[in-house]
Amino acid sequence: MLLDRQAIGDLALGAAFLGSGGGGDPYYATLLAEAELERRGPFEVIGLDALADDALVVPCGWIGAPTVSVEKLPNGREAIDGLRRLEEIMGRRIDAVIPIEIGGSNGLAPLFAAARLGIPVLDCDGMGRAFPESQMAIFNIRGLSACPSILTDASGSLSLIETDDNLAHERLARALSVAVGGIAHLVEYPLTGREAKDHAIHGTITAARDVGAAIRTARGRSEDPFAAMFAALEATGLYPHAGVLFDGKITDIERETKDGFSVGRVVFESFDGASRMELDFQNENLMARRDGAVVAMVPDILTVMDRETADSITTERLKYGQRAKVVGAAAPAILREERALEFVGPRAFGYAQDYIPIEEIGAWLKP
Amino acid sequence: MLLDRQAIGDLALGAAFLGSGGGGDPYYATLLAEAELERRGPFEVIGLDALADDALVVPCGWIGAPTVSVEKLPNGREAIDGLRRLEEIMGRRIDAVIPIEIGGSNGLAPLFAAARLGIPVLDCDGMGRAFPESQMAIFNIRGLSACPSILTDASGSLSLIETDDNLAHERLARALSVAVGGIAHLVEYPLTGREAKDHAIHGTITAARDVGAAIRTARGRSEDPFAAMFAALEATGLYPHAGVLFDGKITDIERETKDGFSVGRVVFESFDGASRMELDFQNENLMARRDGAVVAMVPDILTVMDRETADSITTERLKYGQRAKVVGAAAPAILREERALEFVGPRAFGYAQDYIPIEEIGAWLKP
Repeated sequence: MLLDRQAIGDLALGAAFLGSGGGGDPYYATLLAEAELERRGPFEVIGLDALADDALVVPCGWIGAPTVSVEKLPNGREAIDGLRRLEEIMGRRIDAVIPIEIGGSNGLAPLFAAARLGIPVLDCDGMGRAFPESQMAIFNIRGLSACPSILTDASGSLSLIETDDNLAHERLARALSVAVGGIAHLVEYPLTGREAKDHAIHGTITAARDVGAAIRTARGRSEDPFAAMFAALEATGLYPHAGVLFDGKITDIERETKDGFSVGRVVFESFDGASRMELDFQNENLMARRDGAVVAMVPDILTVMDRETADSITTERLKYGQRAKVVGAAAPAILREERALEFVGPRAFGYAQDYIPIEEIGAWLKP
Repeated sequence: MLLDRQAIGDLALGAAFLGSGGGGDPYYATLLAEAELERRGPFEVIGLDALADDALVVPCGWIGAPTVSVEKLPNGREAIDGLRRLEEIMGRRIDAVIPIEIGGSNGLAPLFAAARLGIPVLDCDGMGRAFPESQMAIFNIRGLSACPSILTDASGSLSLIETDDNLAHERLARALSVAVGGIAHLVEYPLTGREAKDHAIHGTITAARDVGAAIRTARGRSEDPFAAMFAALEATGLYPHAGVLFDGKITDIERETKDGFSVGRVVFESFDGASRMELDFQNENLMARRDGAVVAMVPDILTVMDRETADSITTERLKYGQRAKVVGAAAPAILREERALEFVGPRAFGYAQDYIPIEEIGAWLKP
């Protein structure tokens, strides 16, 4: 599959939704991708079947607070420096890269580095959405090591991390990301081709592109972009339930950049003032309560979208007065397994709450 | 020179004084050294003249808050793991190690690792005392790079840092030391033999041992250990002025573990209640004010010592009611050069104060 300019735009739209508010606003990554397209032509994305079992596959993406990424620009060499150094350490070439998370700008970020290394991106990712912490990747859930991992930043520093403990790895990488100013590039969970085939979440780049294409097409035809997006999500087979959980305007927002994350809470009120929604976030939206009752929670996807255009509004872009729909979607089944919920379920984020699938709660607004 | 059990005890006594309150209490390092002596015999310390110009010389020591080091024990492999990994990265064997700082437990720490690697320790160090931050080493002052550096911790994690900016290196290493629990081992500023000869502070292991031997000998003869120590300091040629700045008891102590350091202030009162001293510290004692007037400051050495035994009391061991002398000593001349004072003078620690040598202030108590 080759991604041209339109496909990049679609991927950015879809990844922004799958980011569940996080992963970074894809706007800057889209500009970079368009510039790279001019230089080198379309990006190559291949299926996992094309990969040898002994291939070296490397997930990568940005770590830090999206609030910082909006203001602190990269030097453009972070990903490639990290990947090249990993090649030195592993003593071999990298055969393909994958987004550590499909959500937000991290769904696009590996495309440039891959293009520059002359290698493809695989049609998969490590989270099926975006999550704030490294150990929330499916590769950790399945018992693979994050290390050796390499963190690089805009100043040109490079840090290699080696530990058997993926939680310690997250702590170390997070501390470094804070020390370099709040945002850094991370190459982690180096995989064999076999491990990528067995554990990565397949088809998510295609899925994100399809979701974005549905929104774009509906807009072009002046149809409802939300309805088109829900149909596209279901058609992916990965996100089988989706719908609107709230429709209103933002009446309150608390947000701080803390311990390397953007954390806070946003409050919505319906236009008739009769209903209210609260959404907690740690980079990503985690938990939605409507009139006091929980209506959706991690790992299900929760994204705030402009109610007219269906543009996703990442957590660092939330503003008082925005008129928005809060959209929920079922997470890929792989993230709802018992072992996965230990790392990405509500208790992993400190909630005294068992996971209830979004479609079981069934608190969709009527279309 | 071979260091036997008595010499290790002397080195610990002398290093504790030269630590200026920091570098960690040498008690635990002394126990480790004694155990290692039983296994392998005396430690080998050689002069820099014996070294080839193209040798690989590696400073090392512990980074973090001494308050933590008192409670969080090492796994015993940190130094050796870091040094061996550096050998892999540099593609050659390390010929000798040196203490990054002669002060406190860091003056002894490299002995075990060197013994296990079967290589000598050089009779020198990188600070001539102890300082809280990595860029305060003479090697940074002289423009050498801290990287590649390797940080290891008791859990077995290992991080390699590469950056051209030694201040960024300190930030990264400090962030990692906090993330691993407050204390870690750091291998940094890999040097050629020539660089070690040109820039290290020569003779400081011998100096620390001589200072400790003087205290021990005076105690054995029931002579004044302070007078013996001052004579020994002057005889080293490195610390040409020394004396007592205060004699009294601790009446107040504020101390917190913050941003990877032990920081605070200790207040002394004379026994007649007529005089008072305040001592600020950041791991090490930085600035002494007696009755409101500055009497000594970094980079000169400022150590609180038990007024009977002349045992040095590191900043993490200061307690209300301790009866102590505050002793000052001139720093090695190399630390008083203009370029050095940018990194280790009072302004480098946030004081709006130019450096005044301790002997110029001349506020010694009469013996």
